[in-house]
Amino acid sequence: MARSQRAYVDYRVTVAYVGTVLKYIGVTPAFPLVLALYYGEDPVPFVATSVVMIGSGALLERVRGDGDLGNREAFLLVSLAWLVVPLLGTVPYLVAGTGTVATPVNAMFESMSGFTTTGATVLGEISVERHGHAMLLWRQLTQWLGGMGILVLMIAILPELSVGGAQVINQEAPGLALEKLTPRIQETARVLWSIYAGVTVLTAAVYYGLHLAGTAPNMDLYNAVAHALTTMPTGGFSPEARSAEAFAPAAQWVMMPFMLVAGTNFALFWYVLKGKPNRLTGNTEFRSYLLAVAGFGAVISAVLYLGVGLAEMPSNVAVIPGNVESALRQGLFQVIAIVTTTGYASMDVNAWDGSAQTILLFAYFLGGSAGSAAGSVKIVRWVLVKRAIGRSLYTSVHPQAIRPLRLEGEAVDEETIRDVFVFVLLFLALFAFSTVVLYLDSFRTPEISLSGLDAMSVAIATLGNVGPGFGVVGPMNSFLPFSDAAKLYMIFLMWIGRLEVLSVLVIFTPSFWRW
Amino acid sequence: MARSQRAYVDYRVTVAYVGTVLKYIGVTPAFPLVLALYYGEDPVPFVATSVVMIGSGALLERVRGDGDLGNREAFLLVSLAWLVVPLLGTVPYLVAGTGTVATPVNAMFESMSGFTTTGATVLGEISVERHGHAMLLWRQLTQWLGGMGILVLMIAILPELSVGGAQVINQEAPGLALEKLTPRIQETARVLWSIYAGVTVLTAAVYYGLHLAGTAPNMDLYNAVAHALTTMPTGGFSPEARSAEAFAPAAQWVMMPFMLVAGTNFALFWYVLKGKPNRLTGNTEFRSYLLAVAGFGAVISAVLYLGVGLAEMPSNVAVIPGNVESALRQGLFQVIAIVTTTGYASMDVNAWDGSAQTILLFAYFLGGSAGSAAGSVKIVRWVLVKRAIGRSLYTSVHPQAIRPLRLEGEAVDEETIRDVFVFVLLFLALFAFSTVVLYLDSFRTPEISLSGLDAMSVAIATLGNVGPGFGVVGPMNSFLPFSDAAKLYMIFLMWIGRLEVLSVLVIFTPSFWRW
Ligand SMILES: [K+]
Ligand SMILES: [K+]
Repeated sequence: MARSQRAYVDYRVTVAYVGTVLKYIGVTPAFPLVLALYYGEDPVPFVATSVVMIGSGALLERVRGDGDLGNREAFLLVSLAWLVVPLLGTVPYLVAGTGTVATPVNAMFESMSGFTTTGATVLGEISVERHGHAMLLWRQLTQWLGGMGILVLMIAILPELSVGGAQVINQEAPGLALEKLTPRIQETARVLWSIYAGVTVLTAAVYYGLHLAGTAPNMDLYNAVAHALTTMPTGGFSPEARSAEAFAPAAQWVMMPFMLVAGTNFALFWYVLKGKPNRLTGNTEFRSYLLAVAGFGAVISAVLYLGVGLAEMPSNVAVIPGNVESALRQGLFQVIAIVTTTGYASMDVNAWDGSAQTILLFAYFLGGSAGSAAGSVKIVRWVLVKRAIGRSLYTSVHPQAIRPLRLEGEAVDEETIRDVFVFVLLFLALFAFSTVVLYLDSFRTPEISLSGLDAMSVAIATLGNVGPGFGVVGPMNSFLPFSDAAKLYMIFLMWIGRLEVLSVLVIFTPSFWRW
Repeated sequence: MARSQRAYVDYRVTVAYVGTVLKYIGVTPAFPLVLALYYGEDPVPFVATSVVMIGSGALLERVRGDGDLGNREAFLLVSLAWLVVPLLGTVPYLVAGTGTVATPVNAMFESMSGFTTTGATVLGEISVERHGHAMLLWRQLTQWLGGMGILVLMIAILPELSVGGAQVINQEAPGLALEKLTPRIQETARVLWSIYAGVTVLTAAVYYGLHLAGTAPNMDLYNAVAHALTTMPTGGFSPEARSAEAFAPAAQWVMMPFMLVAGTNFALFWYVLKGKPNRLTGNTEFRSYLLAVAGFGAVISAVLYLGVGLAEMPSNVAVIPGNVESALRQGLFQVIAIVTTTGYASMDVNAWDGSAQTILLFAYFLGGSAGSAAGSVKIVRWVLVKRAIGRSLYTSVHPQAIRPLRLEGEAVDEETIRDVFVFVLLFLALFAFSTVVLYLDSFRTPEISLSGLDAMSVAIATLGNVGPGFGVVGPMNSFLPFSDAAKLYMIFLMWIGRLEVLSVLVIFTPSFWRW
C-alpha cells in the first residue's frame, strides 16, 4: 500500500469527514418533510433533523487536519460515521415524541437498525395511522442511505484497508487503482450510486406497475416507493405491519428477483453495463449464491408442501400443504429474504416448527454477496473456506504439493485467506457469545421468553444485519419487549456486524494508536 | 518429509498392521477373564473375544505388502484400526447376550464409546449385580486401551502426517526425527506407554489408599482400579450408576488433579522425567489450560455458591448454596471433567438451570491439551487462533509488518496455522450440522425430548469425545432411548471426532487414491 503513514492518528481529519457526511445526509429529511406537508402531518421533526445534522456537520467540518485520509483515519471514519449518523438519526423519533420510539434507547435502536440496513424494529404495532406517512418513510429512507454507505464501504474502503479478507472483492472493483484513498472512494462511489439509484427507481416503477395493472391492490405509490427504498439496501423495513404478507402473490413473486439483485455484488453490474455480462454470469460467488438460494429454497418449499414443517395450521397460515405455488412461493421468498439478509417476510415463520426454523437458521449465516449491502458472513468467504479445506485435505496426503487457491482464475493471496478464516471464526465466536448474553438476559426479563433457537436467531438477526428472527422477534413481532441492556447490546451488534467486526476491533487495539 | 511416496496406496500394509494391533489387544481380555473366574461370573465372553481377536489378527497379518508404512497407509491404518478394534470389541457384549448392550447397534455404540474414550453409554441402569464385575471392567479396559492408542496417534502419528495443525505438538515430541515412520512410532510409544502405565498404577494406588485411610468408603480395590483405568485416558466410564457422586468429597477432590494430569500433554512429562520441569510449567498450552480451568471453575462455583444456577432444590442436590466447600468442589469437578473431556460427574448437571449449563457448554469445546488422550478442539489450537486474530488486527493497521506467530519461542509454520483454522472451522461445522441432525431425529423418536441446548450437548459430547451431556443424556442418564439411526450417527461422530476429523476425511478425497 503506497499511502503515506503518519506517526500518529490524525483524528481531526476523520472528524471533518464525519462532518461532511452529516451535511450531505442533512439534506435528505426534505423528502419526508414534503410528504408531511402533503399528508398534513407534523413537519417539525424533519426540519429539526436537517437543522441539527447540517449544523453539527458544519461545526465538525471546521476541525481540519492535514487534509489527507490515511489508513487509520479511514478506519476511524467508518466506525465513527456509523455511530454519529444513527445518533443524529434519532432526532425525528425524539422530536415527534410519540409511540414506542420516543425513548432514547428505542430511538437509537430503530435508527441504528435503519442505517445498518438491519430491519429489526421496536415500533410495536406498525400502522400509517399511528405513526404517519412521513415518519414511516424516514425510517425507510435511513435504510436506503445506510445502503449507499455500505456499498462504498464494501467495494472501495474495506478492500483498501485489507480487513477480514475484503480484498477478494477488490478484484471486481471498478475504477483505477489510485494512490490516494479519497479520489478512489469518490470515483467508485459515483459509479455505484448511479447503479444503486437507477435500480431503486426501476424497482419502485415495477412495484407500482403491478398496482396499476391491478395485480397488487396494496402496492400503491407510497408502498411502492417505501419498499423500493428498503429492497436495494437489503434493509427489510416495511410500513406494513405484516411485511410482504400484505401484498398479493404476484407482488411477492416480483419482489424476489429484486431482492436477489440487491444481494449481488454491485461491482459486477458495472461490467454488465460495460457490455461484459459474462463477468456476472461466470462469477463464482454469484453462481454459488444462486445455488444456495435454490438449494435452501427447494428444501424449505418441500417441507412446506408436505406440511411437515408447520407447527400449527390455523386458517391464517399463508401456505397450503399440497399446493405447489404457495409452497414454492413461501419457501423461496423466506429463503431469499434471509440469504440476502433483507428480512422481509411473506408469512410468519412462527407458524413453522423447530425443524424448518433450524434449517432456515443456517441460511442466516450465508449473507448474500460481498460488494452488496447484504450483511452476515458473505458467500465468497464460505467459498474460500471450502476451497481452503479441500486444499488442506490434499496437502496432507501430498505434502510436497503447492497449490494456491484460485478465485476467478487468479491466485488468492495467502494473507487474504488467513484474514477470511480470522473473520469467520471471530464472527462465529461473537455469535455464540451473544446468544448466551441475550439468552441469560431474557431470564431476568419477564416480558421475554426465549428458547435456545430463538436466542440464536436474535443474535444472528442483529449481528448479521438480517432483521427478524424467530419467536418473540418473528417477522410480524418486534424487539420492543427486550430490556434496555439487551437493546443496547443489540445496537452494538448491529454496528459491529455491519462494519465487518474487524474494522471496529482494530480501533480497540493499543497498536492502532501508536506507530 | 523424506518418506518415500508410492504411486499407489498399499492397503495391504495397512491391513497387516491392523492385524498386529488386533493380536496385541486380543491378549487383554485375560484381565476380565481372571476377574470373572474370581467372582464366579461367566468367563465365555472373554475367552471368545480373545479367540476372535487373535484369530482374525493372525489372518490379517498374513496380508503382506511391501513392508513399509507410508504417508497414506498410515492414514488408512488410523481410520481402519478405530473401526475394526471397536467392532471386535463388541464380542463380549454380544456373547454375554444380556442387558441393553446385547443388540449389535448398542454393543457397537458402547464399544466405540470405550475405544474412543468418549464415555457415552447405552447400558441403562448400571450396577455390578446386573452386569457383573468382569463385564464392567472390560468396559473400563476398552477406554484404557483406547487412550494408549490415542497418545501414540496424537504425539507420534498425526504430527508426522501434518493434519489439522497437529505439527504444533511435534515441537514437544520426544525421540529423534527418524526417516521412517515405523521406528519413530515404536520409540515414542515405548516412552509414552511407560508414563501412561506408571501414572495409572499410581492413580489406582492413591484411590485405594483413600479407601484404606477410611475417607472413601465406596472406593474399594475394584473401584480404585476401574476408575484409574478411565481417568488417564480421559474416558469417564464408571461402574457406579451415579459416577463420582458415589464417592466421598475427599475422593472427589483427589480425582481432580489426576484428571488434570490426564488432560496434560504427555510429552511434557517426558521432559519432567529428564529433569527439565520448566518445560512443563513454562509451557503456553499448559498455562492456558490451567487458566481456563480456573476461570470456568470460578464462574460455575460462584453461580452454585449463590444458588442462582440451580433449577431445582430437592434434598438430593449435592451442592449447598452458601457453602464454600461444596460449591467449589462441585464447580471445579464438573469443569475439570468437561475441559479434560473425561466426563465424570460428582453431581447431576440436570439440577442446574439453562444459564449454568450454557456456560459449561463452552467448556466442552476447549478439549484439554494436545498430546493427551483428551478430545475436542484442544487448547493449543485456541491459543493459535487467538494469536492469529491479534496478528490480523495488527497487520490491517500496519500492512508492512511481517509477524510470524510464535509458540514456545519458535515461529509457527504458516501452513500449520492454516491447518489449525481449517480444523476448527470443520469441527464447528460438523458440530452445527450434527446438532441439527440429532435434533431433527428426536422429533420422530417419542422416547426422546431434546431442547436446543440438549441437542447441542449431545453433538459436542460425542464429537468431542466428552461423554455425557444435558437433559436425557445427563451424566446420570444414558443414550439408550435414541433411535438406532441416531446411535449409528453418534458412533460415526465419536469415530471421526476421535481421529481429529481431517484424518478420516482425507480418505474420502479422490486424490488420496491416486498420485
Ligand atoms: K436486513
Ligand atoms: K470422555
